[in-house]
Amino acid sequence: MKRHLISAADLTRDDAVLILDTAEEMARVADRPIKKLPTLRGRTVVNLFFEDSTRTRISFEAAAKRLSADVINFSAKGSSVSKGESLKDTALTLEAMGADAVVIRHHASGAPYRLANSGWIDGAVVNAGDGTHEHPTQALLDAFTVRRRLVGRDAGIGRDLAGRRITIVGDILHSRVARSNVLLLHTLGAEVTLVAPPTLLPIGVERWPCEVSYDLDAVLAKSDAVMMLRVQRERMNAAFFPTEREYSRRYGLDGDRMARMPEHAVVMHPGPMNRGMEITAEVADSDRCTAVEQVANGVSTRMAVLYLLMGGYESAATPTPARTQENH
Amino acid sequence: MKRHLISAADLTRDDAVLILDTAEEMARVADRPIKKLPTLRGRTVVNLFFEDSTRTRISFEAAAKRLSADVINFSAKGSSVSKGESLKDTALTLEAMGADAVVIRHHASGAPYRLANSGWIDGAVVNAGDGTHEHPTQALLDAFTVRRRLVGRDAGIGRDLAGRRITIVGDILHSRVARSNVLLLHTLGAEVTLVAPPTLLPIGVERWPCEVSYDLDAVLAKSDAVMMLRVQRERMNAAFFPTEREYSRRYGLDGDRMARMPEHAVVMHPGPMNRGMEITAEVADSDRCTAVEQVANGVSTRMAVLYLLMGGYESAATPTPARTQENH
Amino acid sequence: MKRHLISAADLTRDDAVLILDTAEEMARVADRPIKKLPTLRGRTVVNLFFEDSTRTRISFEAAAKRLSADVINFSAKGSSVSKGESLKDTALTLEAMGADAVVIRHHASGAPYRLANSGWIDGAVVNAGDGTHEHPTQALLDAFTVRRRLVGRDAGIGRDLAGRRITIVGDILHSRVARSNVLLLHTLGAEVTLVAPPTLLPIGVERWPCEVSYDLDAVLAKSDAVMMLRVQRERMNAAFFPTEREYSRRYGLDGDRMARMPEHAVVMHPGPMNRGMEITAEVADSDRCTAVEQVANGVSTRMAVLYLLMGGYESAATPTPARTQENH
Repeated sequence: MKRHLISAADLTRDDAVLILDTAEEMARVADRPIKKLPTLRGRTVVNLFFEDSTRTRISFEAAAKRLSADVINFSAKGSSVSKGESLKDTALTLEAMGADAVVIRHHASGAPYRLANSGWIDGAVVNAGDGTHEHPTQALLDAFTVRRRLVGRDAGIGRDLAGRRITIVGDILHSRVARSNVLLLHTLGAEVTLVAPPTLLPIGVERWPCEVSYDLDAVLAKSDAVMMLRVQRERMNAAFFPTEREYSRRYGLDGDRMARMPEHAVVMHPGPMNRGMEITAEVADSDRCTAVEQVANGVSTRMAVLYLLMGGYESAATPTPARTQENH
Repeated sequence: MKRHLISAADLTRDDAVLILDTAEEMARVADRPIKKLPTLRGRTVVNLFFEDSTRTRISFEAAAKRLSADVINFSAKGSSVSKGESLKDTALTLEAMGADAVVIRHHASGAPYRLANSGWIDGAVVNAGDGTHEHPTQALLDAFTVRRRLVGRDAGIGRDLAGRRITIVGDILHSRVARSNVLLLHTLGAEVTLVAPPTLLPIGVERWPCEVSYDLDAVLAKSDAVMMLRVQRERMNAAFFPTEREYSRRYGLDGDRMARMPEHAVVMHPGPMNRGMEITAEVADSDRCTAVEQVANGVSTRMAVLYLLMGGYESAATPTPARTQENH
Repeated sequence: MKRHLISAADLTRDDAVLILDTAEEMARVADRPIKKLPTLRGRTVVNLFFEDSTRTRISFEAAAKRLSADVINFSAKGSSVSKGESLKDTALTLEAMGADAVVIRHHASGAPYRLANSGWIDGAVVNAGDGTHEHPTQALLDAFTVRRRLVGRDAGIGRDLAGRRITIVGDILHSRVARSNVLLLHTLGAEVTLVAPPTLLPIGVERWPCEVSYDLDAVLAKSDAVMMLRVQRERMNAAFFPTEREYSRRYGLDGDRMARMPEHAVVMHPGPMNRGMEITAEVADSDRCTAVEQVANGVSTRMAVLYLLMGGYESAATPTPARTQENH
């Protein structure tokens, strides 16, 4: 596995399965009397957020703290960064302060890549969302959720998603979640179909490793999982966007549509959900919707990513998660 | 005791005494060489603040950290909450991330109640102030302060405030502190008198378990404790408010007025004080004013609340506070 | 050593050398398998920031956490402080909450002095920058950096900077960094020269323990270290300021000028650097520029300051930094 996690494309099939398996071990920490591992004690994780994203930030913060790391939150707003400091100087500063990992969220696509590949930083860099580019830990937690639901918790260990059919619905054009998911799910052997209005598909989507459809109803019956993307309301009045009503009617998931899905199929959403927009309250609150599990799985998956990238300090006293899947 | 702390009315007399007694034990932690208890190690406390309140936030943060809990601060400003995420989705997110307790401050009265009684959250919910409704930990730390001063530190253990006469002065209408204090002090057997301009009393106050007076001077001589409420300056120009000068003259506490109080009586203030407005600097800085003790007692009291609600993980190595008063 | 660190003038030569020696010990913590000392476990450090300064805040936060202290960040923005609470009430609040040290950054010169000398606070007060007045930990980390580079890591232990020639260049008038450095470097025996436009020198500079020059080129060849101050761009259009081009030409450091410095001499910068303004990218990125080391040294130096001021809890199990220099 590489030292950083910038893109879902960085991961081989074995890397991805190792992360998912480790995340299953991490999920068990929550059942221990003391819900913590000492693995990263003395290590520092910096959350470097150039964009507000409380959900993602606290998910990484919770993950790092459960591994006993120290966490420093660095919001670039109001910092010297906003006074024109370069990403380079910020990076060198964090490195000099002893950051063992930098979790970066940035409005500019490619910023995490620059951070990781510049030689400015010795520690691990984790992309927590960059522009419209990627959000690889979201894809990992989604894959984790699908595997658990479709294959099973224990049965899933060591397994990928070969042959599973997963549909992603919504504004693909602006979605880093969609992009990372297509890459990772393909790596894991799944068959991905994108459903979106033509104006919300990126140029070159025909070269992505997936199918494209404009007809949600047609693909529902053949889906093992349907992932609804969040509508960014601030984009809704743009020329390329259907009206709200039209969007809901054609691309929203309601109870009728859900009923056409196979019985075992699940509905996914990265949250926060716009109830009544891309998903009705009925669907959002049904047992088939995994939105809440995805959040919980996010902490386990990020624990696994930090654990594997940062190596961890393994003393005799440290209960090390089983890594028997490592050699699959 | 209930699983959540939403209103002072949730507490029976025995619950309240147990919390005050536990808080006395917690206050002793500050005298230990390492000023921490391992009780909540591996547990996560989320400070979910929809309103800025640095003092209350850091008091809960200090309390949780002294119990070795991990603390995650979630300011709703700039988060997806402000982009229209529902309280429900926020709650489900925090629950999924493994919050063992959520300390919530909200501008809307009733929000903590919804959070606690919705089934969205398994962990404990603690109301840290909701609209003009309640602020139960403030009432508990006030009761703790009164008991220590009037009854004594050791002598107070197991005791309530039966027969003590406590006067609350100021803008009762908008004060969650006053409301929670009236309820709790009554439960603890105290006799409460409210003093306020008629326009700053809530409708229905005649049904509250307390007396009402418009004449501060008349009640001072019969008070064991006088609690001055903070004037919210942003309300001062409203029609229902006396002029600043008039307010100070009739409802402010100065040295002359303090001299009319019984010798043993104390002056309380939740802070921050408007010196020269509801309280003169002379009174604020006198030994009879407990404002600073109240802050210190706030940490001990919140430790007790978190400890009792979250149960704590009790290993053989954990020094458990004496709970012999539990069965009184 | 005094109980607080407000001004570089608080430190005797022996105090300063003790801090630098302790910082060398602290720097070794980063090489341990667990990069932490248990020294301040159970102690609370409050970062009380009335001004945004992410770099300084996270440097102190990292330092305190490596000593196992609990850290509470208190940004005065949006707090009751901005609603008119006095510094006194804020101080009493932090004291009551059990702050063992308060690290204060304030826009008003003198605020840390008031905090430390008012009797409001029992814990240690550390000035993290006040107005245009002082920034003593910056001066200490600068001295630490100079000693390491000019004298050597091990060779430097117990030594001061007697006879070293250090030049400080830029807006001395508004620079707390310059002021603290002049005082501390003089205490340590160094010979300091200030270089600045006449309008950017403070009145009374002739009474400072240093030389003044208007000719950068003339002093470069005689400097063991050249410290470039950051240009505050927001000041650039003021009447007392040269134009940007003029400033760069006369007071900026480029490759040509650096070549005139003695071979062993270093270039320092407190960061963040304005590349192309007071320093060219070529100089900033050269091996002779210590800007990044200064950041790393900042954490070690602040660990030393917190450790020495807060005393630390020394159990048998605590690896105590060697303090043999204490009696020099």
